[in-house]
Amino acid sequence: MPTTASILVDGVAAESIDARDRGVMFGDGLFETLAVVDGVIVNWSDHNERLRAGCATLDIPCPQTGLLADEILSVATNHVRSVVRLTLTRGTGGVGYAPPPDPTPTRIVVRRAWPEHYAAKATHGVKIGIASHPLSTNSRLAGLKHLNRLDQVLASREIDSAHWDEALMRDADGQIIEATRCNVFAVLDDELVTPALDTAGVRGVMRKNVLAVAAALGITTRECSLRLADVEGADELFLCNAIAGIWPVVMLHSDTPRTFPIGSTTHAIRAALIRGGRLR
Amino acid sequence: MPTTASILVDGVAAESIDARDRGVMFGDGLFETLAVVDGVIVNWSDHNERLRAGCATLDIPCPQTGLLADEILSVATNHVRSVVRLTLTRGTGGVGYAPPPDPTPTRIVVRRAWPEHYAAKATHGVKIGIASHPLSTNSRLAGLKHLNRLDQVLASREIDSAHWDEALMRDADGQIIEATRCNVFAVLDDELVTPALDTAGVRGVMRKNVLAVAAALGITTRECSLRLADVEGADELFLCNAIAGIWPVVMLHSDTPRTFPIGSTTHAIRAALIRGGRLR
Repeated sequence: MPTTASILVDGVAAESIDARDRGVMFGDGLFETLAVVDGVIVNWSDHNERLRAGCATLDIPCPQTGLLADEILSVATNHVRSVVRLTLTRGTGGVGYAPPPDPTPTRIVVRRAWPEHYAAKATHGVKIGIASHPLSTNSRLAGLKHLNRLDQVLASREIDSAHWDEALMRDADGQIIEATRCNVFAVLDDELVTPALDTAGVRGVMRKNVLAVAAALGITTRECSLRLADVEGADELFLCNAIAGIWPVVMLHSDTPRTFPIGSTTHAIRAALIRGGRLR
Repeated sequence: MPTTASILVDGVAAESIDARDRGVMFGDGLFETLAVVDGVIVNWSDHNERLRAGCATLDIPCPQTGLLADEILSVATNHVRSVVRLTLTRGTGGVGYAPPPDPTPTRIVVRRAWPEHYAAKATHGVKIGIASHPLSTNSRLAGLKHLNRLDQVLASREIDSAHWDEALMRDADGQIIEATRCNVFAVLDDELVTPALDTAGVRGVMRKNVLAVAAALGITTRECSLRLADVEGADELFLCNAIAGIWPVVMLHSDTPRTFPIGSTTHAIRAALIRGGRLR
């Protein structure tokens, strides 16, 4: 059995990148966090599509789909389940902030072990809080999974100190946008609602799939503004991302802690995602 | 004469950093861009103070002042004038966004050649435009020189295509905050005004020094909200940063192009900065 590298930089087994890469200098790039299960990149076409949309917005030339898929699968060889992070930066060069006219992007593909403890969270639910750190807003960057992630880093510190599983993040106006590494859904008056991501937040691949399977199940969905009071008044609440799948929220720590059941809509959506191969 | 490295990573001559550094993964860190002239780091105490304030906000342990100064001076050895960028990231480790409890920061110190063409801009002035890309807002990150700089990268592309020297950047509400790599000052009704940086923008070292010398010269200064109409109606307009010093704006391309004189306040402030050794 050949040894496989757990890190590839531009397709080659390596541990390091150029110290002047624009990724580290400016956060000038994008990333995807992918579940690779039994040699399959789960929801690859959705991840690839988001990456390409991000490259178009930032004007970074996007490597070929097949090349990226090969590298992602390569680091996951010999493992049943892997988390693979693909980072794509604008590479080196340019003058200060100004990018080079013809950039050569840097590809960093890193495997990490599957978080086995996530399964219990999906089954029994998670307890979450509200981050005090606000999300930056910018309509031009909203939705992209870009490398400017200081907000998520700082909010994650609050999660660790409070011993929560996750935290909802709000913008400066108090609108709930997402959690630090998940999107958020609430069942409210028989509708499945999720924050619109016009000014902040990551347009998650699992979020997209949740919206798709909900519609197929005949559940009314709505992307709208969502405030803390809405969330506190929800019948069901869940988080989602590409690795966690669906995390039902069973406890929300805000001014007054609120418990939630793991409801029928949450169950139905999770089952539909699994049936469709969108969650493995 | 010993060969000197133009890049130091953690104090050692090197060209590369760990591909999993949190700097490239999340923009999790800070930087300073320093003028080193004749073996002196210009305004080092101000840069060091801002870096330390940033480290405190992000909870990154800040290396000793003497160590940083030595490394900055080291890459600039044998050059009369250098631009040195010091990047300080949170290093590697942690679980996803969540930082490690006890991070070992990465120091990247890079020299680049002094931009000789800046002198003409300081003497004859610059022509600038208005970037359409909006600045992200976040009161918790405002002021810091952190590594989340996609806004500046994207606005710089507009500068290049329009053949401007710089561009003013506005937040989503249309408030003028700064230029892509400079702070901005306007002389308005005998006051020297500059945008308050409560929700966005970098608290520049040269900005701080301009405010200090203006006060010493008996010029009334004010940090306030500034809109395009204010800037268009200004008697004098200038930009500043640690490398450019003072750049008088002689032409502002907005709906109707507006020319400005290089006025007496601009001259007086530049002269006072030079007299005080704050601009070399």
